[in-house]
Amino acid sequence: MSGAFADRLTEATRACGAPLCVGLDPFPHRIPALFGDARGDVGAVEKFSEAILERAAGKCAAVKPQIGLFEPYGPEGFAAARALTAKARTLGLPVILDAKRGDIGTTAEGYARATLGPAPGFDADCVTVNPYLGLDSLEPFLALAEATGKGVAVLVRTSNPGARDVQDLLVDGAPLWTRVAEMLKPTMDRLASGSGWSNLMVVAGATWPEEARRLRTILPTALFLVPGYGAQGASAADALAGLVGGFGGIVSASRSILYPSAATAARTMSDWNAAIDDALLAARTELSAT
Amino acid sequence: MSGAFADRLTEATRACGAPLCVGLDPFPHRIPALFGDARGDVGAVEKFSEAILERAAGKCAAVKPQIGLFEPYGPEGFAAARALTAKARTLGLPVILDAKRGDIGTTAEGYARATLGPAPGFDADCVTVNPYLGLDSLEPFLALAEATGKGVAVLVRTSNPGARDVQDLLVDGAPLWTRVAEMLKPTMDRLASGSGWSNLMVVAGATWPEEARRLRTILPTALFLVPGYGAQGASAADALAGLVGGFGGIVSASRSILYPSAATAARTMSDWNAAIDDALLAARTELSAT
Repeated sequence: MSGAFADRLTEATRACGAPLCVGLDPFPHRIPALFGDARGDVGAVEKFSEAILERAAGKCAAVKPQIGLFEPYGPEGFAAARALTAKARTLGLPVILDAKRGDIGTTAEGYARATLGPAPGFDADCVTVNPYLGLDSLEPFLALAEATGKGVAVLVRTSNPGARDVQDLLVDGAPLWTRVAEMLKPTMDRLASGSGWSNLMVVAGATWPEEARRLRTILPTALFLVPGYGAQGASAADALAGLVGGFGGIVSASRSILYPSAATAARTMSDWNAAIDDALLAARTELSAT
Repeated sequence: MSGAFADRLTEATRACGAPLCVGLDPFPHRIPALFGDARGDVGAVEKFSEAILERAAGKCAAVKPQIGLFEPYGPEGFAAARALTAKARTLGLPVILDAKRGDIGTTAEGYARATLGPAPGFDADCVTVNPYLGLDSLEPFLALAEATGKGVAVLVRTSNPGARDVQDLLVDGAPLWTRVAEMLKPTMDRLASGSGWSNLMVVAGATWPEEARRLRTILPTALFLVPGYGAQGASAADALAGLVGGFGGIVSASRSILYPSAATAARTMSDWNAAIDDALLAARTELSAT
């Protein structure tokens, strides 16, 4: 695969038949003993994550490694996250690095290079960023995305209950997050790609389908990154509310795919492989049927 | 030094005579050749940063390493930032890790452990966090701070021009950042320390002295972290606007202390040392005289 992030994501969605993104969230206490003891050993986390990537290749549209679950292991965790990003790319999986970075000036340039730039950067296809510091804080990411065809995923309306505290405050009668979305309109056009979708992605939690539909009217060609499907309680229909015929975004599932009970109980790798394959198929089927 | 973050910071401010925080922002192209070529070699960044820490010990109230300038070097950069944090603590300098993290649930717990927790974490004394995701996203940091006496520095009103885009939007006639500050009131009391100041810190840019005074009325015992002094254009009087008799916060200076022209032009380590000492003395004098 080559080309712009939006083009690759669209192609990968078509190839796997559903807008499914696998969230690579390695919770140490949920990783089966088959892979070692992840509570103190980043090697177990890495083995588990590699095995997930091997199952996921060709069976989802993208993967989203959560760097915040690797950083507690120190530099070795950071190295493991980078190695897994490289492995995912080798397997043909577009990588959205979930880093939620946000800073200003030269520091923001540093984070942009560290996440989207080539080695020693992560060379991810897209990175999540936080808009609280304003447009100038996003600019180094946007400039790098514009120059390389990579993606930038801006947090707009997240899936957690606390999203209400700041994102829902009313500004001239409209929730703050709609103002953040409007601020991103010029960026959506600036990062347009050949697929018709923009390399600008926005995070819109699956737990708020009405908000997702409203967000779609503000940003018609932005890609949606929809967390909160499955274990966080949102249905497939809710999760797909902001997409357009199953395109124009991806729905992220993590716990339901990484830790189904059949996988957690597995005593052999072949049983574990089969359980993960079943979970991937179930999510794909549910998201493609709606 | 031991005890709560706010107590240590207050004691360090008294000992050095000014609320000066040295921002450890290693810009590769500004690091003198005396330390090697920082553009490709993290070793040069580390040598330079160590030398700055040695000059700063006893001459400032805290240091603020900017992890976003280390991450572009990959795992080695991450390791260097961690080693420098450890060195600063050995030198008796309270460390505010400028990481601006923000995520939810288990991931936020991961970031809290990675930044404030013991090895393999950074074991920093305080960490900067982003409030856009709401109070539940801050909770893992606050819980760890409450249990250990460490500090959490929440971005409220930043010093960059883009701060207007989101932070200044009017909610019921008041800027959004005042609502964020009000949301933090219970936290301020929850993280109270023996010094009378809270282990809750708020970031309030020096470029907005009126906002700083307003923020002080909302959060009377919160510590202020004031960036933007010196190279970003704010005067000492502006920078001190939110403090109380020179206590209750620190003013961060980076470029004016790390890269004064006499240091950049230095041909020997002793000339460089003298130039950095002069810059530290000038900032201390300016901030203590106002």
